[in-house]
Amino acid sequence: MDHGRREIEVMANLLSSNDIQAEVNRTHFRKNNCLAINVIGSPGAGKTTLLERTLPHLGLELNVGVIEGDIFTSKDADRIAVHGVPVIQINTGGGCHLDSKMVSKVLPEFDCQATDLMIIENVGNLVCPADFDLGEAFKVIVLSIVEGDDKPSKYPVIFRNAKVVVLNKMDLELLTDVNMETMKHDIRSINPEIEIFEVSCRNGNGLQAWTNWLRHEVEVFKEHKV
Amino acid sequence: MDHGRREIEVMANLLSSNDIQAEVNRTHFRKNNCLAINVIGSPGAGKTTLLERTLPHLGLELNVGVIEGDIFTSKDADRIAVHGVPVIQINTGGGCHLDSKMVSKVLPEFDCQATDLMIIENVGNLVCPADFDLGEAFKVIVLSIVEGDDKPSKYPVIFRNAKVVVLNKMDLELLTDVNMETMKHDIRSINPEIEIFEVSCRNGNGLQAWTNWLRHEVEVFKEHKV
Repeated sequence: MDHGRREIEVMANLLSSNDIQAEVNRTHFRKNNCLAINVIGSPGAGKTTLLERTLPHLGLELNVGVIEGDIFTSKDADRIAVHGVPVIQINTGGGCHLDSKMVSKVLPEFDCQATDLMIIENVGNLVCPADFDLGEAFKVIVLSIVEGDDKPSKYPVIFRNAKVVVLNKMDLELLTDVNMETMKHDIRSINPEIEIFEVSCRNGNGLQAWTNWLRHEVEVFKEHKV
Repeated sequence: MDHGRREIEVMANLLSSNDIQAEVNRTHFRKNNCLAINVIGSPGAGKTTLLERTLPHLGLELNVGVIEGDIFTSKDADRIAVHGVPVIQINTGGGCHLDSKMVSKVLPEFDCQATDLMIIENVGNLVCPADFDLGEAFKVIVLSIVEGDDKPSKYPVIFRNAKVVVLNKMDLELLTDVNMETMKHDIRSINPEIEIFEVSCRNGNGLQAWTNWLRHEVEVFKEHKV
């Protein structure tokens, strides 16, 4: 049996099985009027730090739940827990992405009806999570600009599939060789509809615009209640 | 059929098939007295830049070949080609890692007998490439310190399997919250034997020590000629 073909077939079956569960999750979120977002980025892009900086902006008005995907440790969940929001850790045990079944298993731990926004932080990986629908309303990319302006064109799948990208670590812009115009041009070439925010989680710049946008997305989602 | 178990079984079969071809590749490199290294790191860690800065240090004394793994583009191979070394691009077509079969397919493109050092740059991903032996003599991690000092403990598999880690972007150390002592302590807790180099590809600091070490590794490999 051809090894390549077998890998492709199995991948197709896994994706299809994942998609079925993802639709179940999506219906669950919709029914409970809870906006779910899937946050994806490389290791060290600043996903958890963005959450830590976003929660205080949202916390007073919105009920937020967090699902933390990690390969082995509970470090990220520990960081989120101190902010007083419900957080559940999923350890993938070496796996390179979350899938919809893992998410469905932890959903009963939350009071989804009382949750306005469910933030699912994926495993640190810009490749594999792009292919796995978790049932979220949309995907959020966190990209550290220190990774370089060639990253959008080198990893186009996730940029095609996301609704918004948060360009983080802007405080380091002038200390690196990154060309922000190239980066944003390439992102928009791949996905003309994508929202782009430039932030620094370190000095706080840009976080207000990002959280305003996210709060608005929650409102729009809730207005379309079924 | 249980979906999880099926995924694990298929993964085991793929790994075993990969390991068989990896041994064939390893024998090929050994027979030709060519040290092959597998360079692994997150997107934007600085793998290609490290190669660009390493080649001028080695080029006069050693014959180097480069295999560039990328998901879609040939950007990295184009950057290496200007240095006048033989370089072959492998596009994985969306795949998140190189495997030993992909490498074996491009080996006939090189004059391995005339090559002292074959540098294989893997896809930008700190997770999946850790599991796939390509037939290399050893793995090299490139880690941008801007990713944060928690990365070794969060991605331990690759740190356990590598012989050396190059900590890059040291010029940004004082502008981030990274604790280098924590980072190095955690790396050594996972792998006490690992070599650690601290470099800045931007200002050149530390590159001489790294290239001296690499040159020495080539010499030791060649002395053990079978």
